[in-house]
Amino acid sequence: MANLARTLIESHLVSGVMTPGAEIALRIDQTLTQDATGTLVMQELEALGLDRARTEVSVQYVDHNLLQADEKNAEDHEYLRTAAQRFGLWFSKAGNGVSHPTHMQRFGVPGKTLAGSDSHTCAAGALSMLAIGVGGLEVALAISSQPLYVRMPEIWGIELEGELPQWCSAKDVILEMLRRHGVSGAVGRILEYHGPGLATLTAMDRHVIANMGAELGATTTVFPSDEQVRAFLAAEGREHDWVELTAGADAEYDLEDAIDLSAIEPLIAEPSSPGKVVPVREVAGTEIAQVVIGSSANPGLRDFAVAAAMVAGRQTVPQVSFDVNPTSREILTDLIEMGAVTDLVAAGARIHQTGCLGCIGMGQAPAVGRNSLRTMPRNFPGRSGTEEDSVWLCSPETAAASALTGVITDPREWARTVRMEYPKLALPTRVSVNTTMLAAPLEPERARRVRPVKGPNISSLPPLTPLPDRIQAPVLLKVGDDVSTDEISPAGARALPFRSNIPKLAMFTFTRIDDSYPERAQQIGAESGHIVVGGENYGQGSSREHAAITPRYLGLRVVIAKSFARIHWQNLANFGVLALEFAEPADYDGIDRGDVLRLEHLHDLARTTSFQVRNLTKDAVFTARHRLSPRQVEDVLAGGLIPRLARTP
Amino acid sequence: MANLARTLIESHLVSGVMTPGAEIALRIDQTLTQDATGTLVMQELEALGLDRARTEVSVQYVDHNLLQADEKNAEDHEYLRTAAQRFGLWFSKAGNGVSHPTHMQRFGVPGKTLAGSDSHTCAAGALSMLAIGVGGLEVALAISSQPLYVRMPEIWGIELEGELPQWCSAKDVILEMLRRHGVSGAVGRILEYHGPGLATLTAMDRHVIANMGAELGATTTVFPSDEQVRAFLAAEGREHDWVELTAGADAEYDLEDAIDLSAIEPLIAEPSSPGKVVPVREVAGTEIAQVVIGSSANPGLRDFAVAAAMVAGRQTVPQVSFDVNPTSREILTDLIEMGAVTDLVAAGARIHQTGCLGCIGMGQAPAVGRNSLRTMPRNFPGRSGTEEDSVWLCSPETAAASALTGVITDPREWARTVRMEYPKLALPTRVSVNTTMLAAPLEPERARRVRPVKGPNISSLPPLTPLPDRIQAPVLLKVGDDVSTDEISPAGARALPFRSNIPKLAMFTFTRIDDSYPERAQQIGAESGHIVVGGENYGQGSSREHAAITPRYLGLRVVIAKSFARIHWQNLANFGVLALEFAEPADYDGIDRGDVLRLEHLHDLARTTSFQVRNLTKDAVFTARHRLSPRQVEDVLAGGLIPRLARTP
Repeated sequence: MANLARTLIESHLVSGVMTPGAEIALRIDQTLTQDATGTLVMQELEALGLDRARTEVSVQYVDHNLLQADEKNAEDHEYLRTAAQRFGLWFSKAGNGVSHPTHMQRFGVPGKTLAGSDSHTCAAGALSMLAIGVGGLEVALAISSQPLYVRMPEIWGIELEGELPQWCSAKDVILEMLRRHGVSGAVGRILEYHGPGLATLTAMDRHVIANMGAELGATTTVFPSDEQVRAFLAAEGREHDWVELTAGADAEYDLEDAIDLSAIEPLIAEPSSPGKVVPVREVAGTEIAQVVIGSSANPGLRDFAVAAAMVAGRQTVPQVSFDVNPTSREILTDLIEMGAVTDLVAAGARIHQTGCLGCIGMGQAPAVGRNSLRTMPRNFPGRSGTEEDSVWLCSPETAAASALTGVITDPREWARTVRMEYPKLALPTRVSVNTTMLAAPLEPERARRVRPVKGPNISSLPPLTPLPDRIQAPVLLKVGDDVSTDEISPAGARALPFRSNIPKLAMFTFTRIDDSYPERAQQIGAESGHIVVGGENYGQGSSREHAAITPRYLGLRVVIAKSFARIHWQNLANFGVLALEFAEPADYDGIDRGDVLRLEHLHDLARTTSFQVRNLTKDAVFTARHRLSPRQVEDVLAGGLIPRLARTP
Repeated sequence: MANLARTLIESHLVSGVMTPGAEIALRIDQTLTQDATGTLVMQELEALGLDRARTEVSVQYVDHNLLQADEKNAEDHEYLRTAAQRFGLWFSKAGNGVSHPTHMQRFGVPGKTLAGSDSHTCAAGALSMLAIGVGGLEVALAISSQPLYVRMPEIWGIELEGELPQWCSAKDVILEMLRRHGVSGAVGRILEYHGPGLATLTAMDRHVIANMGAELGATTTVFPSDEQVRAFLAAEGREHDWVELTAGADAEYDLEDAIDLSAIEPLIAEPSSPGKVVPVREVAGTEIAQVVIGSSANPGLRDFAVAAAMVAGRQTVPQVSFDVNPTSREILTDLIEMGAVTDLVAAGARIHQTGCLGCIGMGQAPAVGRNSLRTMPRNFPGRSGTEEDSVWLCSPETAAASALTGVITDPREWARTVRMEYPKLALPTRVSVNTTMLAAPLEPERARRVRPVKGPNISSLPPLTPLPDRIQAPVLLKVGDDVSTDEISPAGARALPFRSNIPKLAMFTFTRIDDSYPERAQQIGAESGHIVVGGENYGQGSSREHAAITPRYLGLRVVIAKSFARIHWQNLANFGVLALEFAEPADYDGIDRGDVLRLEHLHDLARTTSFQVRNLTKDAVFTARHRLSPRQVEDVLAGGLIPRLARTP
């Protein structure tokens, strides 16, 4: 019998065959954008000439850029608010909360598809949605009712048995998955959880597990829609949105694994990878300087309430900054009503505004080399905002116990010492729903009269010219293996405010590798263009399309690499950059920065996959190939997906 | 009969005569430092070789640099925590609250003197303290039990009569003072409030009025210690600290004014000066984009509670960001207990961490040109973090009414429209005191074993060499009139994190006027030195001593100006920069940038006030004079106060 993930795919299949690895096209019911990627999505909707969103629900959230160190964030927020009005989207303003839990609370519906321009979009799998994080342009197309193209994943069934022991929670389950399978263990796969162990995991617990499926590289995660989901929707006043969706006991999977929940113990990911998971007891006693509770990886009322119950009537140690980031307006309200905020404040917590904050390096940066324990999903080096950081990932239980002791602490051990029973939390069965916090789409007539407000920091998308038949250009940069999109277009408090300003953001391109790149590219000029040469796995990491747009803006026309990471390879095609692979990887060694290369007959891209590349400087010739689908060839020839679509009526 | 201010001065007089304008020395009982100025104070204590604070109470607060966009803020906090331990200070960590209201709640004692390295230190006058904001080095000296030198001010008695009308509050009283007298109306004066109108003003109301005395240029503000102060201290569990202090009905003042409270109406300061005050009704209807409630200028429980009562059950408009910054851990706790935070959140507020935040341009920056209404004390251009900002200052009542309408709104008018009675607030008679939030000074033995933790961003003070007898150096910069310390050493989210790193901060020196200054100074070298030429009122504005240290670090030895602002003039002497005035202001016109000047016989500074300055480039000679006291002459000759004191056993 079919598993749940296949059922969800089948019910939304527009084209393609459901064979793992084959390209399929999916109908998208809902979309989600946040502010760091959304300003570009709105510019793409403008460029596509969209009149009005054609999805069932599309929501623009503001949760990333909340520091407002200068005018740029506020101008982005106003642009997003008015662009959402123009295109008939919902708008969730700054202060409403982090997109993923807020979307789950207000809009999540079992059985629907969701495309989001944020890699943790997969969290909505907790509600039995098929939710996939993709590049902004693909969300823009989904908003315009175009299908989403993905490679059909393998479905990996994870059977859950038993019940979590005291002082362990959902975070320890996903950390166990990461301990077993590492950060690329689920690439090309959907994780589908099933089995009797689900009965004790609430929908928000499942959100924790689904969210961090992204850290295993999964396409997404799917949970069934059962009584726990019904209870969640009922608490949100939306029981009418519930439908039952389960795979049945005889469902078949491409791969299988099982977790005995009763055997889980408190786990922690060491610096600086979510995959470096060890039992907390093995690193207990390590001194810490910061504890942060919050983010979409531990967003639920329970996650804060359990920490509050542990610190109630106690004091966190003076040398630790104890930071608490409530996830949404609703959750903050309920935490206040329960007395949890009072307990946290009295114990020494700094209560921050609702939002992503330190999770994406917007504030809360720790001191160099000082240990920071976070309930967040990622601890990549420097992501905290501090280049030489030391960030650990753990459950709220481990975080709270450690804040009280000043050292990494197994919460079971702490409980024994202070003789505390595991808190029995009295969570509300009906939460503080506040729908006035969300601005509904305007009526079409009114929407058409809105002109999105663009502050001086908000550019339009640069024009994208077609690919010439012949390119003769210098190799402006030669990089090694595993160059990430973070190195191509950095995030963080310095660069993120420019996410809506391509010309400005372009000046950060590749600067973590070579800070002369943007200026050298400008000297040559975007018209003449340039080439980048890369090693294996070029463009790994985050899905940000800025890593394709900003070098393209500076004149990048061709990347020749040994191999490409999947999403960036797609983004390059989306923005009209030709991605070629060396036929002979050894030819990589024969090229130096500054060499002038000549490529001819590029307009034959549809007819041939192989091209002769002449190195004029070295007077040599080598062969390069492309793997583009016919669809992608058209995009590249047109200069990118936007000009191609603009051309097609 | 003596007024209260004179009585307070007399009881702390170490030397000097109490004639307005004469230099007097005061014994200091308490000190207050915050993190933006405190890191330098701690470095100064190190340089002075202090073993332990000799004041009754000295507190180091962390309230300014809370954004933590990278590691620098966290490293400052750890340095301050450990330096406070080393020198026997109290330490109030990030999250405890804004220094001024927190100090008043936990440490304020009627009749005591307080020196603080923050210009709003004067707020403690609400508790009948003599509280003066000064440069960091002067606080460091006060911590070392040296007296504080000030010019004896005139005492300005302000008689309050009647009672405030509904929908008006303390903020409107100080705005009325600013409307009448402007931003320099109280320079060289102490404002002393007295009269029957005081009976209805709580201690926290008086804090609002005392705090913004700084905006009139006052040396400080003094209120009597009466039943309202007793009630405040009792609510804080500190009634034992209360003493009665009043001037008596027949007190005499150097100047007099009177305010009939019953005639006050809602007032607002227009962009971009606290002195541009008009009635709210005159600007009603102006569209706004942001409302911020918080800061030391409206810090009290009442200030938030009245706003919460107004928005309860209502929604602020979608296009306005409604930001609420609770002032201290205690006040946040009480606001939660009262249900006020729940009402604010439900109405659309973003609840931020406790601290100064937007008041000093650390976050919350508005969009360019969009109106931001704030209950804060200052709206100087660009202080919000946005260069071309448009910030207004008003009461919480005006702010809340405007957040609900989206336009500047007279709260009386709003109340008529919605038929609302002025809220009768049930404030607690005993507040949520939490003393565990403050780290008490360590025992001397333990303190001596502490080594302050200096992260990579924390420099030590640069060495300060004595003044040479002969200086021949170029004029590196020539500036006009009214150059402020903000232009000499900028604040804001970019520069503030470097406040503990003089070499780095030095690279911002004068860059708002001429961004080549730091590099040109470095090319010449600090050894050879350079000269700056200024117009009238050189160094006006904030008391930051960084504006003297950073140019000195880059080699500034002499400033020749038409006239100097008082505090900066003192800071220059403190850091060994010779401040000379043109004998003939017209000689200013004869100097150009790049001219090489020669000054000789500078070691005669104690014997003569007049010097011949030779302009070698122009082959001309002019006369310049100094106004330094014998004490200051010694400082300048030694290269600054620190080397002078280090030399004196």
